[in-house]
Amino acid sequence: MVIDGSYGHGGDIYKNKIRLDFSVNVNPLGTPEEVQQAAADAAKHIAAYPDPYCGRLRQKLSQMLGADAEDILCGNGAAELIFQFVLALHPKRALLPVPSFSEYETALSTVGCTPDFYPLKRENGFALTEDILDRITNDTELLMLCSPNNPTGLCVPWELLTQILERCRETGTWLFLDECFLELTDRDKARSLIPELCGDDRVFILRAFTKLYGMAGVRLGYAVCRRRDMLEKMCRLVQPWNVSSIAQAAGEAALGCTEFVKRTRAVLSEEKQYLLRELRALSIAVLPGDANFLMLSGVPDLYEELLKREILIRSCGNYRGLHDAGDCRIAVRTHEENAALIAALRGICHA
Amino acid sequence: MVIDGSYGHGGDIYKNKIRLDFSVNVNPLGTPEEVQQAAADAAKHIAAYPDPYCGRLRQKLSQMLGADAEDILCGNGAAELIFQFVLALHPKRALLPVPSFSEYETALSTVGCTPDFYPLKRENGFALTEDILDRITNDTELLMLCSPNNPTGLCVPWELLTQILERCRETGTWLFLDECFLELTDRDKARSLIPELCGDDRVFILRAFTKLYGMAGVRLGYAVCRRRDMLEKMCRLVQPWNVSSIAQAAGEAALGCTEFVKRTRAVLSEEKQYLLRELRALSIAVLPGDANFLMLSGVPDLYEELLKREILIRSCGNYRGLHDAGDCRIAVRTHEENAALIAALRGICHA
Repeated sequence: MVIDGSYGHGGDIYKNKIRLDFSVNVNPLGTPEEVQQAAADAAKHIAAYPDPYCGRLRQKLSQMLGADAEDILCGNGAAELIFQFVLALHPKRALLPVPSFSEYETALSTVGCTPDFYPLKRENGFALTEDILDRITNDTELLMLCSPNNPTGLCVPWELLTQILERCRETGTWLFLDECFLELTDRDKARSLIPELCGDDRVFILRAFTKLYGMAGVRLGYAVCRRRDMLEKMCRLVQPWNVSSIAQAAGEAALGCTEFVKRTRAVLSEEKQYLLRELRALSIAVLPGDANFLMLSGVPDLYEELLKREILIRSCGNYRGLHDAGDCRIAVRTHEENAALIAALRGICHA
Repeated sequence: MVIDGSYGHGGDIYKNKIRLDFSVNVNPLGTPEEVQQAAADAAKHIAAYPDPYCGRLRQKLSQMLGADAEDILCGNGAAELIFQFVLALHPKRALLPVPSFSEYETALSTVGCTPDFYPLKRENGFALTEDILDRITNDTELLMLCSPNNPTGLCVPWELLTQILERCRETGTWLFLDECFLELTDRDKARSLIPELCGDDRVFILRAFTKLYGMAGVRLGYAVCRRRDMLEKMCRLVQPWNVSSIAQAAGEAALGCTEFVKRTRAVLSEEKQYLLRELRALSIAVLPGDANFLMLSGVPDLYEELLKREILIRSCGNYRGLHDAGDCRIAVRTHEENAALIAALRGICHA
């Protein structure tokens, strides 16, 4: 049954004996000290219900983002907001590039919507290309994009993204843009669509604390959207206390960790170069992704071979739009971990 | 807007200056030391995603309840499970006694269902009576009951509850039974329907950690249901990581706190007697509730008068089925707090 079985994501360290986990895309530096402390302090005061408005947290997000606090909605992890948004919009027609994060399709299925798929092509290196514009028509109620995309790690090129935004304005299409990995991207690529929003654009931008601040265990995400009627509708679809007080406290602390974020980007940038270099030296096909993870192809049984060595990676076999059993995703981790992975891969490739 | 405005529950200590909070029904003894410690320890390991199966927690619940772990589903607070259950069942016709917890009706509204209301009558002391049986017909897809009920504090009498169960079996009606306050009830009234379930009864029993263990801030509830197809369907409607790892750790610790639960029941029993005695001495009408809260009636402007004294109670004016502006709910708190409330009430009644 579902509650015991068919979990199709990374990070299932609860059912496997694992020494190194490359299957989840959380910050390799872990959780900032301040965030851990804030969570531990908040743990002493859990008898009270959480602030249903996430008032202080939304205020701080507002300052950081230069967005109105009224345009920000927090959720029990970004994942909750995906389901909540889809439930509120209840689209009949949606357009979804694949491969991408499977929860979009799962969420659409809860309202009986089978999306039109836009296949990202292997021969294009899985890049989103301009022909997506022709697929956005007056009938397209919703386009769901992930930038950088999961599992490819590729950002939608800025020029194309603004064209898509313009096209969605013309056709009245809702643009759902998942920026959960954007802050983990090299700075020059990390350009958010948030400052481009104007009027009451039908744009819903998803962000997470999970990955950047190593907070996957407490669940905290947020959305920025200028259509307040949408946010109001979404609020009515869930309980008022969905965001725990620990998550709110941890989130407030996280927003102060600017040095940690800089350090994270530096480590990721350097380690990504290291991994790309070493993987190519091993003749392993790898996409030059922008995010804190990389997609590999072409090594048969890679998942199983690494699991034998107690290293967990993300097999991408269950991503729609990926048919090659050798497609895998690895997180960019600390140098020590990355070096251990490369050593294991060397053993596998030279076996 | 909703995310800043029309929150209609107790516990809004974030927007009011409050010295004493009688508006929420959380254990007056607060959070057990062991639970706080478990939450604080878990706060050090929040980088990892939570166990999507809540495996260890469900195993412990299974032992405690004598129910199969496969029949247990955990949620981000009991409140999430209300919405999730209603979304999965998607009933067209539902029967709802009122007044009751407003989130049932809110959840039903998310699937476009306006329930048939069964008015609990003031002249009956808001007791559920046998005529409910005639209201359960083959057309009734769902009956939502709360025992003890919020805000009245009254348990459904055991004899009637078993008759309702029998009637629901005959008519094929889903029985949603909220037992979130049951463990805070005097022991002889605290009889759960869980052991009565058999076969694949269409019964969904809701439980919370929130109230009994002072864990409202971390969000943890669970359901027991023999219809595994229902639990599977519910799982597909939400993200896999809805229950934070801190909540899971806190919940596991809570299940070991049997002495704390005994002490809680003793304090509540004694303090409820104290409050009933003192309230009656002040000629304030009060229902002899079974839960850790009491419903008062007939004192005009009681909410406002107490708020002036920085004491927050729950005005029941926004409960459907309660038309008397004087209806209020107070939590049973520690003796010191209860005495302070009584002193304030004395001042108001004798002014």
